[in-house]
Amino acid sequence: MKIEVVTIGDELLLGFTIDTNGAWLARELAAYGVTVVRRTSVGDGADEIAAGVGAALERTGAVITTGGLGPTSDDLTKPSVAALFGRAMYEDAQVVESLVRRWKAMGRTGDLPKSNLQQALVPEGAGILANAHGTAPGIWLEDERGRWVAMLPGVPREMRGLFADELLPRIRARLEGTPTVVRSHTIRTTGIAESVLSDRILSIAGLDLEGLSLAYLPGWEGVDLRLTARGLAPDKADARLARVAAVLRTAAGEHVYGEGHDDLAAAVLDELRRAGKRIAVAESCTGGLLGARLTAIPGASDVMLGGIIAYHNDVKMAALGVHAETLAAHGAVSEETAREMAAGVRRALGAEVGVAITGIAGPDGGTAEKPVGTVCIAVDGAGPAKSFRARMIGDRREVRERSAQSALSLVRRALLGTA
Amino acid sequence: MKIEVVTIGDELLLGFTIDTNGAWLARELAAYGVTVVRRTSVGDGADEIAAGVGAALERTGAVITTGGLGPTSDDLTKPSVAALFGRAMYEDAQVVESLVRRWKAMGRTGDLPKSNLQQALVPEGAGILANAHGTAPGIWLEDERGRWVAMLPGVPREMRGLFADELLPRIRARLEGTPTVVRSHTIRTTGIAESVLSDRILSIAGLDLEGLSLAYLPGWEGVDLRLTARGLAPDKADARLARVAAVLRTAAGEHVYGEGHDDLAAAVLDELRRAGKRIAVAESCTGGLLGARLTAIPGASDVMLGGIIAYHNDVKMAALGVHAETLAAHGAVSEETAREMAAGVRRALGAEVGVAITGIAGPDGGTAEKPVGTVCIAVDGAGPAKSFRARMIGDRREVRERSAQSALSLVRRALLGTA
Repeated sequence: MKIEVVTIGDELLLGFTIDTNGAWLARELAAYGVTVVRRTSVGDGADEIAAGVGAALERTGAVITTGGLGPTSDDLTKPSVAALFGRAMYEDAQVVESLVRRWKAMGRTGDLPKSNLQQALVPEGAGILANAHGTAPGIWLEDERGRWVAMLPGVPREMRGLFADELLPRIRARLEGTPTVVRSHTIRTTGIAESVLSDRILSIAGLDLEGLSLAYLPGWEGVDLRLTARGLAPDKADARLARVAAVLRTAAGEHVYGEGHDDLAAAVLDELRRAGKRIAVAESCTGGLLGARLTAIPGASDVMLGGIIAYHNDVKMAALGVHAETLAAHGAVSEETAREMAAGVRRALGAEVGVAITGIAGPDGGTAEKPVGTVCIAVDGAGPAKSFRARMIGDRREVRERSAQSALSLVRRALLGTA
Repeated sequence: MKIEVVTIGDELLLGFTIDTNGAWLARELAAYGVTVVRRTSVGDGADEIAAGVGAALERTGAVITTGGLGPTSDDLTKPSVAALFGRAMYEDAQVVESLVRRWKAMGRTGDLPKSNLQQALVPEGAGILANAHGTAPGIWLEDERGRWVAMLPGVPREMRGLFADELLPRIRARLEGTPTVVRSHTIRTTGIAESVLSDRILSIAGLDLEGLSLAYLPGWEGVDLRLTARGLAPDKADARLARVAAVLRTAAGEHVYGEGHDDLAAAVLDELRRAGKRIAVAESCTGGLLGARLTAIPGASDVMLGGIIAYHNDVKMAALGVHAETLAAHGAVSEETAREMAAGVRRALGAEVGVAITGIAGPDGGTAEKPVGTVCIAVDGAGPAKSFRARMIGDRREVRERSAQSALSLVRRALLGTA
């Protein structure tokens, strides 16, 4: 099955909202062999919605929209699509009832705001996709030729819940007997340039991708290698993906830290568990980002004790025991300071492993000797103490993100004995 | 001027990469009165690229593409667009030279990888958009009727630099004499539901939006109100935006914390500076996220000392001085514990203001009395000590983000005396 996704909203075209819905839908659908063949973003205007959805419907006969179902006057998806199907709108009593029930359940007082009632207007002959996660119900509209448009709300949390609860079952019901799928497999690498990785792979003797497509996806976490199988039976796709992934994994070697959506932070927590060690973090320029990365993983608390954000030098000395002489002789951004921070936080929190980051995230604070992006990272207690100095590229945000990723990578390699 | 943006890459359609380039380009262009009227994402295939770019070119005669200029074999943007324009490809000696220069400047040894040489192939008659931020140059292709396609790389940092350095000047040169612009103004609110805000605004006596469009943009930071003026001269647009924004700001009242892209963290830092106070953070379930929010703002170091990530209860007691009795009587997630954490971190780091978060981010750890999403937040040293307990909606990530935002909001209101 081929589907098009149309995301609706002036805020998308003006660039004030990043469209995460389109990507999420594509990922979910691909797992069921449904291919998103095009994604279009159009404005809030009725004409733009009708043009975008109409053209998509012509091409594939199967369209998912997100956005424009809210309680405000800029929400025109339902009437625009209803017009495409030649349907009138009516106020659905059941939707009104569920809106009122939800309003009361949230502990709100007074009557349902009039704006919310607009959400109860639905096209004639529509299927209502009940929204257990918010106020706007989704809409399923289908014509006599079986062509359909499913309208979902734009708020990501609501869209995701509604898709899983109500839309996916309808789509799956149409897939019975569909023999082929699109399946992907991603190998995650860090610490190697895209072109070097590509040359390594292209130089594999007798390289055979078996008809799979290979994409290089660089980002601040590293370069992901994405293999995609199209038009194969599920078993065949999985076998090919496994075979080719094994070849690529060998070529990328020590730079591979995971598969799929694996987070390096989760890999580090797993290594800590294997080693029977607990970690504490000491952060200067990242200001909590490394701790946030580790604690973003559910269940981190068994090996992650906590940390000290030592943004000010006084905190580095008082809370982490960094020596004033070290700061004077080498500066706050130095391997020496990073090593004392790592040892200090380990001691202060009673952890077996300490990791520290100190650097210049910019935009100000750089010098000729230590330009913006200079970062020193140290680990203590995972084998011999290690540290390194690096220059991270990118803006303040990227320098901080890359620093946290590099610190995680150092801890992992130290625990594995390959640092 | 009307432009379409086509973002290229299987990874976008498969949903493994979120398209941030389209939004960024739209934002930059809108400031110059250039409207992105549609955004399309297509796959890596030559046919898909040609179909997407070709249709966009028919509609507007002005197209920006991102992606598919990399050094690997899945990068087909240049030949596909060249074919649309009926142009052959050749290897550009100057591009080769700059690729070699960059390769050496990065301290790489050996010859330039062969994969990189593909980046030197350009369509005949093309303008080269030099890339000071990476290896792939951008391409400008124009036909005899003045219709053009500008091809930019997909890596956001490179795309942004190349756009500003090379493409924006070309676009601006075509705008001379264009009399009208699209301008937007955003008012940021937190702590009020979209529908309540909408009703407040609709109930303003004699409300006149003066022809501006108003969008409600809900997210975990709160609800943004975006006003947009289209087709007006710059002065007139600015004046209308200022007048209507003032009316909306009054209606939203105490919930307004900023304008445009203002970050609540920056507003808190400003209030701290005004009050002559420095802050320290104590974080349990957010694990460093609040510290990361504050330190993401350049120049935070004058009022942000640092913090303690007390993920484990031992750290809450040892480093923050939370009493064992408090934990036993009220639990780690309680206003009592949060208050002791806030007072403790203030004392430990020598700050004037302490703020603390403790909660259950999920997916596990919830109880009937304290379900997942229960969060307690406290502030100490900004007027009388304050604390509250709330139930945050959403998944682990949202609970953590909303908690950090709520803590910032509490600090701001405490400093302003409206908590």
